[in-house]
Amino acid sequence: MPQQLTRETLIAKDLADPLRRFRDQFVIPEGLIYLDGNSLGMLPRACVERVQQVVEHEWGETLISSWNDHGWIELPLRAGAKIAPLIGAQADEVVVCDSTSINLFKVLASALTMRPGRRVIVTNKENFPTDVYIAEGLARLLGNGCELRFATPDTIDAALADDVAAVSFSHVDYKSARIEDMAGITARVQRAGALAIWDLSHSAGAIPVDLNVAQADFAVGCGYKYLNGGPGAPAFIFAARRHHDAMRQPLSGWLGHATPFAFGSHYEPASGIARMITGTPPVVSMSLLETAVAIITEAGIERLREKSKAMTSLLIDLVEQQCAGSGLDLASPRDAERRGSHVIFAHPEGYAIVQALKARGVVGDFRAPHFVRLGIAPIYLSYAELWDAVARLKTVMDAREWNQSRFRVRAAVT
Amino acid sequence: MPQQLTRETLIAKDLADPLRRFRDQFVIPEGLIYLDGNSLGMLPRACVERVQQVVEHEWGETLISSWNDHGWIELPLRAGAKIAPLIGAQADEVVVCDSTSINLFKVLASALTMRPGRRVIVTNKENFPTDVYIAEGLARLLGNGCELRFATPDTIDAALADDVAAVSFSHVDYKSARIEDMAGITARVQRAGALAIWDLSHSAGAIPVDLNVAQADFAVGCGYKYLNGGPGAPAFIFAARRHHDAMRQPLSGWLGHATPFAFGSHYEPASGIARMITGTPPVVSMSLLETAVAIITEAGIERLREKSKAMTSLLIDLVEQQCAGSGLDLASPRDAERRGSHVIFAHPEGYAIVQALKARGVVGDFRAPHFVRLGIAPIYLSYAELWDAVARLKTVMDAREWNQSRFRVRAAVT
Repeated sequence: MPQQLTRETLIAKDLADPLRRFRDQFVIPEGLIYLDGNSLGMLPRACVERVQQVVEHEWGETLISSWNDHGWIELPLRAGAKIAPLIGAQADEVVVCDSTSINLFKVLASALTMRPGRRVIVTNKENFPTDVYIAEGLARLLGNGCELRFATPDTIDAALADDVAAVSFSHVDYKSARIEDMAGITARVQRAGALAIWDLSHSAGAIPVDLNVAQADFAVGCGYKYLNGGPGAPAFIFAARRHHDAMRQPLSGWLGHATPFAFGSHYEPASGIARMITGTPPVVSMSLLETAVAIITEAGIERLREKSKAMTSLLIDLVEQQCAGSGLDLASPRDAERRGSHVIFAHPEGYAIVQALKARGVVGDFRAPHFVRLGIAPIYLSYAELWDAVARLKTVMDAREWNQSRFRVRAAVT
Repeated sequence: MPQQLTRETLIAKDLADPLRRFRDQFVIPEGLIYLDGNSLGMLPRACVERVQQVVEHEWGETLISSWNDHGWIELPLRAGAKIAPLIGAQADEVVVCDSTSINLFKVLASALTMRPGRRVIVTNKENFPTDVYIAEGLARLLGNGCELRFATPDTIDAALADDVAAVSFSHVDYKSARIEDMAGITARVQRAGALAIWDLSHSAGAIPVDLNVAQADFAVGCGYKYLNGGPGAPAFIFAARRHHDAMRQPLSGWLGHATPFAFGSHYEPASGIARMITGTPPVVSMSLLETAVAIITEAGIERLREKSKAMTSLLIDLVEQQCAGSGLDLASPRDAERRGSHVIFAHPEGYAIVQALKARGVVGDFRAPHFVRLGIAPIYLSYAELWDAVARLKTVMDAREWNQSRFRVRAAVT
């Protein structure tokens, strides 16, 4: 732990922060300390302008001609190409479309088709639930022996048999923030003849990802977390170029067709990553994502990672120092190199603590069954804010504010 | 044909139009005559305000709390409930989510599950292509004898055998605008033990649809045509309430789970139509659709239909009068009762005619192989505009402007 950690030393750290100017590129509500950028990133100011442009000018004035004149038709590939360098992919290996759940379905179904005779999808019970649910939905639909097998990155070897078509893991665990060894696991999966699929929802925009160095087969990820694409922003798919010709996904909609405007009566997949597209993209939401991604690129993913590690380490130090004895137990890796960009603490009163903290202007989130999750989006957070956040957390814990009944009522979204 | 059709009589008709005031609720670019509201509806002024509110206030200031505080979590069901009365459904039978293509996949897969042992999907080669492609994708994925059988609404009886699980037709044909007999076909399909699925993309918002009177099983439809939800607006799904317990769709993402925020490791479908939801909705795009639908509701779908019939009939009369001998052949039904809200004319130079017309400020669209499609969105079009549009069409045809080489170059989106 650094010696003599004070609010003043942190203010000095902010003044010296090479990313400091990026904070001004976001809308930061007065008095709010937002530690939930891993659920919904803050609003980039550029998106305010962009949405006006796309709605009032492109839709309002240019109307249908915008598909050509403003490049809407290229938007899924163009936005994908912008995400690509953040995740270690080539520009033609990424496309933006649909939701993470739907994209995982496409990728899992492709993988099963590419491994005929193999009927098992290995996934992690601790994966973000939708990853498991989607694999369940596919297996149930296919029947005929198609099934899930549960394993963790630590127990993967035991799960790898010659019936495994694909292994679907998260790169950064949505609860613990543990970073998995993408290259190592991918190699083990591939040695067993299966395909390695990575969910980058808690990585993209926060951590440099090296999909091609790791030789990953497929990946999916979310646009509304660290990429700041806005609520429910479309998601992305990565497919390694070597799979482009062989992959076939069943959500074969017209915009993934080789010649969509020929209106032929038989589906012919587009070449390349474009065959992962299904229907018409939600242009307004997707344009916001495209704009937001450019800011992350400008800040530089390596610099963001450095600041993120410093911040999550600081947050742990501050909580353990200021809230010692409060029962908050670190449940994220202590080693910054193995930790993503959020920190969780276990506490039996986790739910009510998150609510009490929110009433004091610090937004984190609760993750069942008993985790307080504090997300660090280094592009807009300051070190001094972390000091203030922990000071408020200390007040909540010291006064046992989580005991107040108003903090114990469960909201629809927790 | 009405006697003495003049621009003046049409201006008088506009002045007497009970829907006249709705035109002012849309952004109408100066000098443009927009006959393509069946591809992308115009921008409602209310959407300009709404998008600012959802981006700057809800996302920018309220951030993650908007899921509860601004009802984002209810948005798919709330928007669905608003579409329901336009299509003859109950409020709890419609949900907004994903794209039409993806929603059709969910519905087709549900139908196959509900008719075990039956492996055939009947569809129409003349359906909008994505409807066929999606059925192909599902059949290919399932294998095991699952296949497509082609029929038209006119030849459906011959296609109905005891191996048919579902029949998927469009209510209004995207080319000819022919309206199918939903109740009659549904009854025949159901007598054969299959489920009737309707694509309402060219009906919703233009024609009163009576799904429940017809006893339809499922339907899907598009948000960006006559509903004016904006480019790539999310689509909708209708499922008759009697099927809610039995239906299971394979894109079983977390927001269709019975208790999404319990983060359980096993999928349990939500009750009711909510199980058709998959992932996180694109809130910005979906909010625009919700706002736009309210305007259609206010105008009244019956009044819109009356105006639409008068306008498509007028358009046919004007073209046949003004452009007689030009080779433009009506390829839509002549009977307004059997015609949706657009009109197509066949002409060997269809593509170039559409481009030449556009250069004269009249936007229609081309549909392969040789159709000029002119869409009538009665909520914002005036009768006088149709006069002017046909006057410009006459200029194009008389001068054979379609012969100019600049109109013969194919754009990415046609």
